Amino acid sequence: MSESFHDVISTTRSIRRYRPDPIPADVLDRVLQAAVWAPSGGNRQPWRMIVVSDTDQKRKLGALYVEEWAKYVAYNMENAKNAPQEARDKLAAGLAVGTNLAEKMHEVPVVVFFVHDSRLIYVTDDHLPRTSVVGGASLYPAVQNLLTAARAEGLGGVLTTLIARREDEVREILGFPAEWGVHAMVPIGWPQGRHGPLARLPLAKMVHHDRWQD
Amino acid sequence: MSESFHDVISTTRSIRRYRPDPIPADVLDRVLQAAVWAPSGGNRQPWRMIVVSDTDQKRKLGALYVEEWAKYVAYNMENAKNAPQEARDKLAAGLAVGTNLAEKMHEVPVVVFFVHDSRLIYVTDDHLPRTSVVGGASLYPAVQNLLTAARAEGLGGVLTTLIARREDEVREILGFPAEWGVHAMVPIGWPQGRHGPLARLPLAKMVHHDRWQD
Repeated sequence: MSESFHDVISTTRSIRRYRPDPIPADVLDRVLQAAVWAPSGGNRQPWRMIVVSDTDQKRKLGALYVEEWAKYVAYNMENAKNAPQEARDKLAAGLAVGTNLAEKMHEVPVVVFFVHDSRLIYVTDDHLPRTSVVGGASLYPAVQNLLTAARAEGLGGVLTTLIARREDEVREILGFPAEWGVHAMVPIGWPQGRHGPLARLPLAKMVHHDRWQD
Repeated sequence: MSESFHDVISTTRSIRRYRPDPIPADVLDRVLQAAVWAPSGGNRQPWRMIVVSDTDQKRKLGALYVEEWAKYVAYNMENAKNAPQEARDKLAAGLAVGTNLAEKMHEVPVVVFFVHDSRLIYVTDDHLPRTSVVGGASLYPAVQNLLTAARAEGLGGVLTTLIARREDEVREILGFPAEWGVHAMVPIGWPQGRHGPLARLPLAKMVHHDRWQD
């Protein structure tokens, strides 16, 4: 971990292809510990990690994920049906990497499931006509800490949420309580390929000063 | 930024008291850039930052926040009404730090408002009986990057969400489009007091292996 904070955070990209090598227990513990350091509303820490390395468990969970991923691919291709062929090809190639991950989930060294107890979350946007997102404020900072800490160790991972579509079945496989939900599934491993660079909008497009400018 | 990634992430606590010193533009830009590096679903980056340093704007927004904070304090004290006096005193002391911040929001050097466009978010848990949280997966990783990057610069901040209760008024003050919502308000500045240590549950309490164990 000789890299600077800046080096780590500027190169933490989603990694979906891994070498089969196992993750040493001490390395994994440092990554999990970084997640625990994240903030949450009232410091209630309304979430837990279920760290799955058992191949049978990964197979069962991967089988759910692969079905949801296929629907997601179909949804994206349908949305892009009127796009130029070049854009469609690029989209299809990007989605193929995800398909490969979905089909090989049982080969990923570790898949971390994040589960939470909604009863401990103070939601402030559930009165609005838009989708409520604020519950995630106590949950996803920990997932991001996990991803950047993985990167600091040379590992790679990707934040996925499709598995929430199959929450009841995930609960049955993982055995968490009825009141708890699943909000993220993060495969991690030693990357095939490199970390960074990141494709993001320029800072000037992402920032407004004092007031929104059109 | 000579500290290691580990030093930064293990000491990034919520900071609610700041010195009045301004934040140099280059430092602030590095912090904002780190937020932009966060992942989002399909890399759609469905969010923007409105960086408020204008005192009049901070006064207007702080006036909304202070009202919501007072309700939050009342809610917490009511919930703890049957707790031992010592626990109530500790809770009240903790909340007083937040009250001080709420009342002095206009003195905080910079307050970053995070806004988002729900139409760009693929939500996978809106069919469930529990509160939907998955929309936050494309939003709060960026907020956490901002907080850890601020810490790497020696700055402190805190993730707050109460302002979402007043979304319509916030939209009027900040001028963002009708389709956009506000999901976080993060005051940042040079801390009074120290970074870290963090009070969190032990790792063993936060992690299950392969299956939930009671």
